Amino acid sequence: MDISGRTRVIAHLGFPTESFKAPLIYNPWFEQCGADAVVVPMGCKADDFAAFLPLVFRLSNVGGALITMPHKVVTCGLVDRLSPVARIAGSCNAVRLAADGALEGDMFDGEGFVRGLLRKGCTLQGNSALVVGSGGVGSAIAASLAAAGVARLSLFDMNEASAQALGERLREHHPALQVVCGSRDPAGHGVVVNATPLGMKPGDPLPLDVDRIDPAAFVGEVVMTHEKTAFLTAAIARGCRYQIGTDMLFEQIPAYLEFFGLPVATPEQLRAVARIRY
Amino acid sequence: MDISGRTRVIAHLGFPTESFKAPLIYNPWFEQCGADAVVVPMGCKADDFAAFLPLVFRLSNVGGALITMPHKVVTCGLVDRLSPVARIAGSCNAVRLAADGALEGDMFDGEGFVRGLLRKGCTLQGNSALVVGSGGVGSAIAASLAAAGVARLSLFDMNEASAQALGERLREHHPALQVVCGSRDPAGHGVVVNATPLGMKPGDPLPLDVDRIDPAAFVGEVVMTHEKTAFLTAAIARGCRYQIGTDMLFEQIPAYLEFFGLPVATPEQLRAVARIRY
Repeated sequence: MDISGRTRVIAHLGFPTESFKAPLIYNPWFEQCGADAVVVPMGCKADDFAAFLPLVFRLSNVGGALITMPHKVVTCGLVDRLSPVARIAGSCNAVRLAADGALEGDMFDGEGFVRGLLRKGCTLQGNSALVVGSGGVGSAIAASLAAAGVARLSLFDMNEASAQALGERLREHHPALQVVCGSRDPAGHGVVVNATPLGMKPGDPLPLDVDRIDPAAFVGEVVMTHEKTAFLTAAIARGCRYQIGTDMLFEQIPAYLEFFGLPVATPEQLRAVARIRY
Repeated sequence: MDISGRTRVIAHLGFPTESFKAPLIYNPWFEQCGADAVVVPMGCKADDFAAFLPLVFRLSNVGGALITMPHKVVTCGLVDRLSPVARIAGSCNAVRLAADGALEGDMFDGEGFVRGLLRKGCTLQGNSALVVGSGGVGSAIAASLAAAGVARLSLFDMNEASAQALGERLREHHPALQVVCGSRDPAGHGVVVNATPLGMKPGDPLPLDVDRIDPAAFVGEVVMTHEKTAFLTAAIARGCRYQIGTDMLFEQIPAYLEFFGLPVATPEQLRAVARIRY
């Protein structure tokens, strides 16, 4: 892959950058499909982000930005337009420059999560889901589950106000959706999601009581540090179908590519070229 | 070459970016020598540069900047420290972050030009040189010729004040140097340099009267659009030894690499891996 002055740069903005996965997925894909584009990590700290983001989009060869920790929430206030999902989620992980010069923000974490579930044969329309964790990724997943037609959403966060606020935004955009806050009991839910960081560190407690998950339920995980977290392992032992953390990543990249107007790959094509594990 | 979150990014700042050559030389070299570094073009426009440059150096994974048109002069006012050559040249094409947090600017166009002449067997110590064109690159070449020990420098620019100002800065730093401004007669000079853009476009006039060049002189060119400009071709016909435009480029990259603390290549190694012609 030759980077030249004609190459379209996709800025990958976050800090720290050491664990960034996107360049090791997108760039091999661009190479394989012959797209003259490159994802470049830019380790922008929180204090500099509000000044840096608009200047990045003033660069003549930048064709989009991937936004990651710790900038996903603040980005919502820095762009001119937000997709409905980004507005409900209260966070953005993709920004592009529209033809009219406006910055447009969108959020694909939830979209990737939902695409992965659908591909695995999970029915979302009319289903009932529990999402534990109402931070950036949990909010995005809840917003995309609502957009995909679930009938009932249970939200739980250690910070009760955070779950309540997400519930309010969901009710506003989806009046028919039944939203319940404050319980992390998985019983009676067809979809059960860990959207907390629990499982990243050895010795973390489980995010919820796995013994009460319906064995017929689909279980999803957002932790990507290893393939099967203790939570997933326990749910699989109960017979649940499941989705691992990096599925959300690989499933959302096609949505990103489409958003940026770049050649779209399937998640399978991306997994085949990616230079990361899982 | 895999770009990851640990890769050191060298920002290549200029506008427009379409004709950038550096990424097609540096990046193949980094790949060959196994350096985890990448040169990334960033098409920064003049109006944005003063705000963008300091923010680039706030990024955690940026390890330097190559500065090109139209930012070389303004960079001098945006860094904390300037090398003597950059100060005389009044322009910068390299910036790095020092250990104490200061931005340091240097200028390697002239250094590359001089290294190339010396490698070709040209004696500069005590020699006499004519530099036509007192813009950024001409000033840098004059400054580096002075540092290399030429005894006499003739400077010419269509903008007389520009040549005069350069002459003043040279006299200040090199009191023993004989500086003459206002003539572009090459007679009597052992080194004759075209540092104007003349030769880039078909039909451009010659920058000076080639018939008056001493056949024993060394002739140098800064135009890189093709290998042998009309000026060089005419001088070669007179029997002059010569240096083509891209020699300055390839000869200065080792100085840049050293400045950034990256693995140093010889110009020959760089020419062998480069994905540009000449």
